Amino acid sequence: MRKATLADIAQHARVDVSTASRVLRGDSGQRVSQETRARILASAEALEYVPNMLARGLKNARSYTVGITIPQLDNPVFYDAIQGAAAALKNRGYSLVINYVNPSEKDENLYKKLVQRRMVDGLLVSGFDTGEDLEKELDELGFPHVTLNRDVPGARFSVSHDNQSAAMIAVDHLLELGHRRIVHLAGHQGGVNAMARLAGYRRALERAGVAYDESLVELAGYTAAGGATAMKRVLERVSPRPTAIFAATLMSAAGALQVMHEKGIAIPGEMSVISLHDAPFASLVYPPMTTVALANEEMGRAAAELLLEVIEGSHNVPRRIILPPVCLTRRASTAAAKA
Amino acid sequence: MRKATLADIAQHARVDVSTASRVLRGDSGQRVSQETRARILASAEALEYVPNMLARGLKNARSYTVGITIPQLDNPVFYDAIQGAAAALKNRGYSLVINYVNPSEKDENLYKKLVQRRMVDGLLVSGFDTGEDLEKELDELGFPHVTLNRDVPGARFSVSHDNQSAAMIAVDHLLELGHRRIVHLAGHQGGVNAMARLAGYRRALERAGVAYDESLVELAGYTAAGGATAMKRVLERVSPRPTAIFAATLMSAAGALQVMHEKGIAIPGEMSVISLHDAPFASLVYPPMTTVALANEEMGRAAAELLLEVIEGSHNVPRRIILPPVCLTRRASTAAAKA
Repeated sequence: MRKATLADIAQHARVDVSTASRVLRGDSGQRVSQETRARILASAEALEYVPNMLARGLKNARSYTVGITIPQLDNPVFYDAIQGAAAALKNRGYSLVINYVNPSEKDENLYKKLVQRRMVDGLLVSGFDTGEDLEKELDELGFPHVTLNRDVPGARFSVSHDNQSAAMIAVDHLLELGHRRIVHLAGHQGGVNAMARLAGYRRALERAGVAYDESLVELAGYTAAGGATAMKRVLERVSPRPTAIFAATLMSAAGALQVMHEKGIAIPGEMSVISLHDAPFASLVYPPMTTVALANEEMGRAAAELLLEVIEGSHNVPRRIILPPVCLTRRASTAAAKA
Repeated sequence: MRKATLADIAQHARVDVSTASRVLRGDSGQRVSQETRARILASAEALEYVPNMLARGLKNARSYTVGITIPQLDNPVFYDAIQGAAAALKNRGYSLVINYVNPSEKDENLYKKLVQRRMVDGLLVSGFDTGEDLEKELDELGFPHVTLNRDVPGARFSVSHDNQSAAMIAVDHLLELGHRRIVHLAGHQGGVNAMARLAGYRRALERAGVAYDESLVELAGYTAAGGATAMKRVLERVSPRPTAIFAATLMSAAGALQVMHEKGIAIPGEMSVISLHDAPFASLVYPPMTTVALANEEMGRAAAELLLEVIEGSHNVPRRIILPPVCLTRRASTAAAKA
């Protein structure tokens, strides 16, 4: 498509060029009605108009700022990634802005502004494990970006976790404590991280000679509310009752704990609970939670450094970095199964 | 100071004008050494150089983006403010970018970029209750900004909470349950919110005929770690032991709970706990916490709307908005004092 001009916008919005120009310059004079202004902005958006002066001025100018998108505010998994990325960027004279992107109501405008106006020189795309629309768009634009927390076949640059190994460490811990009826509170249906964690759960069980039982897997997503709902379903439908829970993430585990407290189920006396990811939050729930830590800070750091190489043109060979799990931290939420 | 020109930068950095120009345009060609490039960028920063084309192009162009600074990632208080601000901005066609500003290592560059490059049209400055350096700087620049979560005398535009009334509601609840030895885990020394909450604590006690006892006040700040440390000090030095805790915020209350679990103190049997602020997090600690909710989402919404009025020039009369507390939510962490 030919690049839209100011005249195209004016014609599309049925106004004269000077009016279109005034509105698109952000002139806040009162001579243009709200309705007309809205129509002009809509036309500019429909035609993907980039103001000439801006385009010319910004094309070669770095902002020395990088954006990171996060899909959830109240999830400690992202804090460490942000801290790691911010520290690495600061070392190189770059700043970080955070873009909270509610997956259910993506702000298309934000990307246009960030990318087309060159507010940022590149994006760290940190999401859950489904949906790659944004990356595809950025690929088409040739805009520097690195995917965090998700290993997507076909992605050019990504940094993510070895989720299968992490899940195996968690399930091995429960098996060593003598548990056999282990429920898995899984992530999103079809998500790459969820699938890898489920595969690790299954592989650890089968390696220990415990048959995989699909009825012990319940989708919980990555929120406390999701974990609570899933835990209620498990308690209603799974019989005999399981003796241990392996949750895909801290927040879903916390929601499950809340439900068990309501039902008067003793932890770890009647039910052991282990989760992937570690954060100070794991010690604020009760009892403090046994976890398998993933290298979130390192993920942020490595992704930021990779992105700077892409931005500065010193590295253009695609690379997918997979980080191993860090360690098991045993706290009070897991104990030996009753004989 | 006269505005610096490209020639000034070149002279200051001891390079010719074309080299300075190439570097400041962000040209990533290999003909300029890293050392020279760094010197030119340092000169541009020292002389506060704003590229002409950018300055001209951006002066009248809105970015339709607003920034919000937050001082702590793992604090649910800020999530609702962010959600409220984002929703209000979206209604008006604006986007929100979040700037995490670790108070101990402020990124001066970020402000310069955000403000001088007009990456954002205005800033929501959301912090704890100390330090107004940023606001003073923005005032001097005449850059649109609204202060959140802090009522500072002299501020032109702010939206904050009636912290004294909120504290009185919390302490009244404990008094009605028969508690008399009530510890206050306070915020920052000298912080305006901390002072207002302490004043409310004191006033509620005195109104009920309970003498104010300075030894029952312990500074905890606004983090879980701060709450844990403060709670340990209280248990060591306060005798006879208090029967109730009023914490200035959720995170410090959660840290205090953690310490009491470690010491085997029953909640609410031996100690009732109440906190200001409400969030899903309050139900993820154990036992679920009784809280006095503050209107954080409304704070974000009101601040964003005020900022847009300032940006669009339709409102320039200074205004400090104070929001009343929302409600007491009684959960399992508070109970009647033992006779």
